[in-house]
Amino acid sequence: MLLYNNSWSANCYKVRLLLTQLGIAFETRDLDVVDRSNRPEVLGGLNPALRVPTLVFDDGRSLGESGAILWYFASTVGTRYLPEDPFERAQVLQWMFFEQYDIEPNIAVARFWKLAGLEKPASEVEAKLAGGQRALAAIEAWLSGGRQFLVADHYTIADIAVYGYTHVAEQGGFSLDAYPLLQAWHARVAAQPGYIPIT
Amino acid sequence: MLLYNNSWSANCYKVRLLLTQLGIAFETRDLDVVDRSNRPEVLGGLNPALRVPTLVFDDGRSLGESGAILWYFASTVGTRYLPEDPFERAQVLQWMFFEQYDIEPNIAVARFWKLAGLEKPASEVEAKLAGGQRALAAIEAWLSGGRQFLVADHYTIADIAVYGYTHVAEQGGFSLDAYPLLQAWHARVAAQPGYIPIT
Repeated sequence: MLLYNNSWSANCYKVRLLLTQLGIAFETRDLDVVDRSNRPEVLGGLNPALRVPTLVFDDGRSLGESGAILWYFASTVGTRYLPEDPFERAQVLQWMFFEQYDIEPNIAVARFWKLAGLEKPASEVEAKLAGGQRALAAIEAWLSGGRQFLVADHYTIADIAVYGYTHVAEQGGFSLDAYPLLQAWHARVAAQPGYIPIT
Repeated sequence: MLLYNNSWSANCYKVRLLLTQLGIAFETRDLDVVDRSNRPEVLGGLNPALRVPTLVFDDGRSLGESGAILWYFASTVGTRYLPEDPFERAQVLQWMFFEQYDIEPNIAVARFWKLAGLEKPASEVEAKLAGGQRALAAIEAWLSGGRQFLVADHYTIADIAVYGYTHVAEQGGFSLDAYPLLQAWHARVAAQPGYIPIT
């Protein structure tokens, strides 16, 4: 299996983390996330979004979107990372969609601007910080119900998906000081068997 | 069942469409999408994102994110709207994540600005139009492979999810003239049994 990858991208990290925890071997090929001019040539025909992660199976089939890749492996090989109950499975997806809509576009983008050294207007940076803080506060409120993990009281791909960018939010200029339950949950994720860090 | 709803939102429409096609009865309660000041009071405790659609079941459980709601009903009641094959199921999710990341933030937001009469800087409007056109072109390219539907050669919740905002893209200032396959696919979706229009 070949994973089109980038070391900055926590979307790619989510896939590397699950595949490693499942003991599934894969190769990586890193793509540039600043200069994307070769994307149509490399990913055209593999992923309509021309983004990483894109996974290519040995039989030539390909799959894009970190959430879809996580779901595929958790629903086939790593079923311990998905609840069995259909409602809890839908809750897993609720958090995964929330992550791609509310967390990623704010925290990942603010972090990318910093990592890439891009100067952006203060109003744009402020908007990303405000949106990201709202998302972090929503997770903190959810965890305040005594939950150890996001869904079903055990580690699932919802945790992997939301952990991805929130655990490196400080690299985007976010403070996690106001979110002690989030920090404790980060520590629980990092204590899972087979855990690997993002770098 | 109670659906917190808004008549402009195609995310809500997706849920209304599937529930109607499945013959599942539901009530709606419309929330304002311009003045959101009552959201914490109404949706707090029901949906961490404080967004519509939010579905409340008769037993009090609640679910947010249109994609999660579609998945729940298609995986339990309306299994004809999901492929059985795990890889094709992952492809359904790939399109649903693509929709929430690449289509919704561009086409839905540009359309909302027009419907609500909000004046935005030309550069912001241009960015939304460019991002939306890239997404529409990606769908057109996918359909050029001879596909009648997005996944598995039959109508699935991937079609519902992607149809939602793309079929009203012109209300956001997008032209669909360059996408004949997209328009033909729109017509196939609208010809499905039990179809209802957005308004």
